Amino acid sequence: MKFSCNKQDLMEAINIVQKAVMTKATIPILEGIYIETNDSLKMVGNCYDMGIECSINADIQQKGSIVLNSRMFGDIVRRLPNSEVFIQVKPNFNVIIECDNSYFEIKGLSAEGYPMLPTVEEEQKISVSQTSLRNMIRKTIYAISNDENRKILTGSLIEANDGDLSMVALDGFRLAVAKVMIKEDTNFKAVIPGKNLTEIYKILEQSDKDVKITLSKNQALFELEQCRIISKLLEGEYMNYKNFLPEQFETNIVVDVSEIIESIERASLITNDDKRYPVKIVIEDNKMLITSNTDVGISKEELLININGNNMTIGFNPKYLLDSLKVADEEKVEIFFSSSVGPCIIKPIEGDSFVFMILPVRIK
Amino acid sequence: MKFSCNKQDLMEAINIVQKAVMTKATIPILEGIYIETNDSLKMVGNCYDMGIECSINADIQQKGSIVLNSRMFGDIVRRLPNSEVFIQVKPNFNVIIECDNSYFEIKGLSAEGYPMLPTVEEEQKISVSQTSLRNMIRKTIYAISNDENRKILTGSLIEANDGDLSMVALDGFRLAVAKVMIKEDTNFKAVIPGKNLTEIYKILEQSDKDVKITLSKNQALFELEQCRIISKLLEGEYMNYKNFLPEQFETNIVVDVSEIIESIERASLITNDDKRYPVKIVIEDNKMLITSNTDVGISKEELLININGNNMTIGFNPKYLLDSLKVADEEKVEIFFSSSVGPCIIKPIEGDSFVFMILPVRIK
Repeated sequence: MKFSCNKQDLMEAINIVQKAVMTKATIPILEGIYIETNDSLKMVGNCYDMGIECSINADIQQKGSIVLNSRMFGDIVRRLPNSEVFIQVKPNFNVIIECDNSYFEIKGLSAEGYPMLPTVEEEQKISVSQTSLRNMIRKTIYAISNDENRKILTGSLIEANDGDLSMVALDGFRLAVAKVMIKEDTNFKAVIPGKNLTEIYKILEQSDKDVKITLSKNQALFELEQCRIISKLLEGEYMNYKNFLPEQFETNIVVDVSEIIESIERASLITNDDKRYPVKIVIEDNKMLITSNTDVGISKEELLININGNNMTIGFNPKYLLDSLKVADEEKVEIFFSSSVGPCIIKPIEGDSFVFMILPVRIK
Repeated sequence: MKFSCNKQDLMEAINIVQKAVMTKATIPILEGIYIETNDSLKMVGNCYDMGIECSINADIQQKGSIVLNSRMFGDIVRRLPNSEVFIQVKPNFNVIIECDNSYFEIKGLSAEGYPMLPTVEEEQKISVSQTSLRNMIRKTIYAISNDENRKILTGSLIEANDGDLSMVALDGFRLAVAKVMIKEDTNFKAVIPGKNLTEIYKILEQSDKDVKITLSKNQALFELEQCRIISKLLEGEYMNYKNFLPEQFETNIVVDVSEIIESIERASLITNDDKRYPVKIVIEDNKMLITSNTDVGISKEELLININGNNMTIGFNPKYLLDSLKVADEEKVEIFFSSSVGPCIIKPIEGDSFVFMILPVRIK
């Protein structure tokens, strides 16, 4: 195998496929990046739960394939000058990497036995912009559960339904739904592991360019311009989350998002990250009073707000409120309270691009 | 005690005195910041090895003193709006902190029993700009030893001598000297603990403003405009470092600093941070060849340089070369080799603002 390519292009592709390479594996080949030259340069990372394939432009002088230790290859390329990189495999699998006045020769591994990505049967396919998918992941991923005993909740539900695409995560204490419109009428449902979505989020750019999402029985395929990401799906039936969303509300308020974030952050300083201590919210006289009272001391914050409905006293784990408010990306949001012991809901003032639900905690 | 002051001023002072507060102490008062209102607002942090006192402008309504938990006080003030902060101590030592619509009440500790800073007898005093002292610390601190069995080497020597102020650190493998001129003819010598210098470095600004340094028998006092830092000294006699600096050289070269840093960094990728593997430097034909050869593979880097003297083959721990070159802050430096088994010296092309000495390692 022999080829040359641009350092930046190579580095970007390595950064992407590395997200699917195990950092510690019992078999060295699984800590490697598979590199193949054919019509273009193709690189693959695969940890079984997720596989990523990237293609980049290269000047290919000789076809072939090799596996290179991902960390070492990445570290070397990262440090190379911004210039053309020449790579060549010797018969003993040693790989020569040259760039300007730098020369490396490192041990490669035969590509035989590398676990290639499975093919995904094109059953149901939809398109969404990279920005939209990024936003949906960001607005929901914090609410997935990390309880391995309820495996299905460690992933996010992705659901296409008559022109809507939703992403849903819930962990028993809160629920997050993000939604966009899509052109396709496709109907499908699948649960993608949270850790794969975290990596996919990092690969997606703020861009209008499309991501194509294809679902088969056991896999989801995310296709970007120069890369394909295959994620396994979590098995099982996802909860019927719509049942959890209350529809009757006693009180609703409109709040300035950055103002309420700062106030809750201050109040939660006193709770010292101790989960026993909720923040108490009192809504009355067009004011919102956020207080906490712990071993350390007390704090009080006062915000002027618009109230619709009854006065209300309710307690929350401040972290849950903050997690949701921080991904709202709106200047103002509307908060709906079902009762002083029931769930509250956070929504944008207009539209239905997200719904966050949070259960309150009992206050003494 | 009752006063109000600007949030930013208060935050800056807390950030500074916190550097001398223990994060974990058996006595709660030692995890606290001492606050006193008299003519101005004074705050103190003290961990015995180092003490810091800061004064800031405040509107003082009632004199008094209190100790507040450093982390809690800092966290609260950091999160307050940029506005006037009102602080008041209640008879039960509870402290009220108010700012705009935020209200905190946290437990304070009686200031009785707080270890106040010692007075430093003004014996020998010199002045140097903050920028100069910063640079001297930066250029030497990496070379102090962390071997507690040779305690004296865990600090840096600060030495005033007929109008020169030097700072020196050495650890048995390398030696760093930084020097500036001062107005005073004072002669003194003291060894300041490395960890105190690390904190002092963070407090110093890039500024022409003076730091006054006063030495007494057991302490050094660093006086800035609004703060005083007292450091204990390390006991014992510092090594006569000048004896270690070779004066005869077989070869000297001039190198571009960022070029050689990048080359050594690449070569050291192959050494995998394994100290058994040095980088080998071959100097001949106006070229510098930097190579490494390990289990992982080999690397070669070639730089064009000017050579004075004999050809040379010599090995180094790449980390030691990089540590020195990275703080040189020069475009080009001159490297002097005494022999292929003797120390090398790195100096600026002009002047004597620093001298770095590094011992080579044997190559196979």
